[in-house]
Amino acid sequence: MAVTDPVQNLQTLIRCPSVTPKEGGALSALTAMLEPLGFSVERVTATEPGTPDIENLYARLGSSGPHLMFAGHTDVVPVGDEASWTHPPFSADIANGEMFGRGAVDMKGGIACFVAAVARHIETHGAPKGSISFLITGDEEGPAINGTVKLLEWAAAKGERWDACLVGEPTNPDQLGDMIKIGRRGSISGFVTVHGVQGHVAYPHLADNPIRAVTAMTKALMSPPLDAGTAEFPPTNLEVTAIDTGNSATNVIPAKASFAFNVRFNDTWSADSIQAELIRRLNEAATDQELRAGRPAIRYDITWSERPSHVFLTRDDALISSLSKAIEAKTGRHPALSTTGGTSDARFIKDYCPVVEFGLVGQTMHMVDERVAVADLEKLTDIYAHFIEQWFENAKA
Amino acid sequence: MAVTDPVQNLQTLIRCPSVTPKEGGALSALTAMLEPLGFSVERVTATEPGTPDIENLYARLGSSGPHLMFAGHTDVVPVGDEASWTHPPFSADIANGEMFGRGAVDMKGGIACFVAAVARHIETHGAPKGSISFLITGDEEGPAINGTVKLLEWAAAKGERWDACLVGEPTNPDQLGDMIKIGRRGSISGFVTVHGVQGHVAYPHLADNPIRAVTAMTKALMSPPLDAGTAEFPPTNLEVTAIDTGNSATNVIPAKASFAFNVRFNDTWSADSIQAELIRRLNEAATDQELRAGRPAIRYDITWSERPSHVFLTRDDALISSLSKAIEAKTGRHPALSTTGGTSDARFIKDYCPVVEFGLVGQTMHMVDERVAVADLEKLTDIYAHFIEQWFENAKA
Ligand SMILES: [Zn+2]
Ligand SMILES: [Zn+2]
Repeated sequence: MAVTDPVQNLQTLIRCPSVTPKEGGALSALTAMLEPLGFSVERVTATEPGTPDIENLYARLGSSGPHLMFAGHTDVVPVGDEASWTHPPFSADIANGEMFGRGAVDMKGGIACFVAAVARHIETHGAPKGSISFLITGDEEGPAINGTVKLLEWAAAKGERWDACLVGEPTNPDQLGDMIKIGRRGSISGFVTVHGVQGHVAYPHLADNPIRAVTAMTKALMSPPLDAGTAEFPPTNLEVTAIDTGNSATNVIPAKASFAFNVRFNDTWSADSIQAELIRRLNEAATDQELRAGRPAIRYDITWSERPSHVFLTRDDALISSLSKAIEAKTGRHPALSTTGGTSDARFIKDYCPVVEFGLVGQTMHMVDERVAVADLEKLTDIYAHFIEQWFENAKA
Repeated sequence: MAVTDPVQNLQTLIRCPSVTPKEGGALSALTAMLEPLGFSVERVTATEPGTPDIENLYARLGSSGPHLMFAGHTDVVPVGDEASWTHPPFSADIANGEMFGRGAVDMKGGIACFVAAVARHIETHGAPKGSISFLITGDEEGPAINGTVKLLEWAAAKGERWDACLVGEPTNPDQLGDMIKIGRRGSISGFVTVHGVQGHVAYPHLADNPIRAVTAMTKALMSPPLDAGTAEFPPTNLEVTAIDTGNSATNVIPAKASFAFNVRFNDTWSADSIQAELIRRLNEAATDQELRAGRPAIRYDITWSERPSHVFLTRDDALISSLSKAIEAKTGRHPALSTTGGTSDARFIKDYCPVVEFGLVGQTMHMVDERVAVADLEKLTDIYAHFIEQWFENAKA
């Protein structure tokens, strides 16, 4: 059974130019790998006015519980400067033990290894004592509107239920086995416009410089620190990502100024409570007596990013320990259980079942010359196969 | 002699549409007023690559000292929304005791009154016991490159020397007699670019957000206050006029951010010393240990406005007291001796002779429906005539 070889699987996938939002043949190639293993494969096209149609895939092997989901994406980010690649980005060339190609680690590599692991599991143990499914989107690197969210809704609507999920994103900073992600911070962005009074710099008392308030308001958002971190999470961090006035006249105090910020918040907060705290800080700065020097509070508007990402933490011991033990058995490393870094589609899956993330080493993701050590593909396949075995034993128990 | 009537003089001037940089017939009209009074009038066209040619005028009556200069401009700012004017902006219509027109107070009105005052002086006292000259530019409301600066250089080069100058800008905030300007703050603008390190908001330790430094640096420029003001000057004031990042990605920490500021400084400082102090403050903020959290100083570039305006203060008692006494005699008011407000061409004249500024009420300058009370034109002519008499007596003594 050829699909037991993750190297061949990955070469097949990389050679499909599935730059988001294009399917590029990647889901068809995956279908061709899964159907011979006994999976029932469904292709789901999701649409939304104003966004490109997206092809997604859901495949299930088995009909009983327990039910393990593997989630990921076949879409990849653009190749960047193609001429700068040592090997063409869709060649899957192997040189000095490394395979080159866009998506090698993020995350066609993870999919290739999990397919191989399932194939080996079936070879060794027969059909799983329960169900395994693949939930694969083509819209993770894009706006993520027609991807995992809709695919989950679609599957749940037809009665699918899962007991655990492994997302195959590249979670290891340096070496295979470094890190499992067991949660993610929440994320929300705010957009503030501060309304002052325009005027000539020579007559500041007739104007009301909104930049003074912007300085005070952005400072209030950042200090004092929002928290000191929790047992499982790093401290909440807020970054001001933009300040703009668009005023080119050096003798004019501008009428308004705007700024934007993004906060990555831990489990000290909900999206609602962090918003409330940030508004409290903004109001305090807007009315600060020293800043305002007797004037009324400065007027400002705030809008928020449409859909905040909620913080989550997975506490499912069977899931985490099956994966940890598999990693230890195959790499000799104790993986860190981390909640650092950006958001991922795990933030949507967590509403359906416990979810963790583990995949390849992420160092070259989104870069020119994205590549993976061939040895890592073999090792990750081993880990995934061991995990599948462990998980079904634990879940059965 | 018709030019003894400031109302007629001003109607003639307003009806010349001399929107900067156009002469619009205004200097020819002025020539026609001055030559019959005995002035020798010269028209001086100044040129500079990349700027429009500008017509200016220099007129002198008399050849001996003492020599009194009246300075001003016949160019006016654009009319704005012409349809919003109650009377057309070049009509010089009089309604309810007010004359409407662009330049009515800034500052064709001042010129009209000074011409009338000189004519009356000649009628009453004969030729002045010395010389009177008009130094009139068509480039005060424009870039001021081909105006007063070049006209002064041209006149000085041919041997002209002056003992005092009165600039006829509208110096009164509310009522005729409120305020003489005896000096002006200096002005200089700075443009700063702060270089951070771009990165993803989820990994702030891999980035270096330049906005944090911008916030600290702009705050350091403004506080503590640069000074508390001096006997003759209000406190130095700095306004941040722009901050810009041009970053629309809410999950990206921008690579750089820029800001601009303008400082209006009093006689505590020279242009050099205020620049040095501001750079000291910027450097202190850029290296602030709490802000930088162990990183090296943040890197920034600064450039300055090409030509700073230098601070000046006129201490010529004969000039100031001649004018003050004339104002008191004709209005019953004690004019404030002020150094507030913006810059004017007086900043160039002060290198040649003592200079003060006094004219009409400035409330409607640069606005739709710019207008002047006809009674004020008569009163200002009286004041100017009295001032001319007083000044020649004092200067002679
Ligand atoms: Zn990914
Ligand atoms: Zn003016």
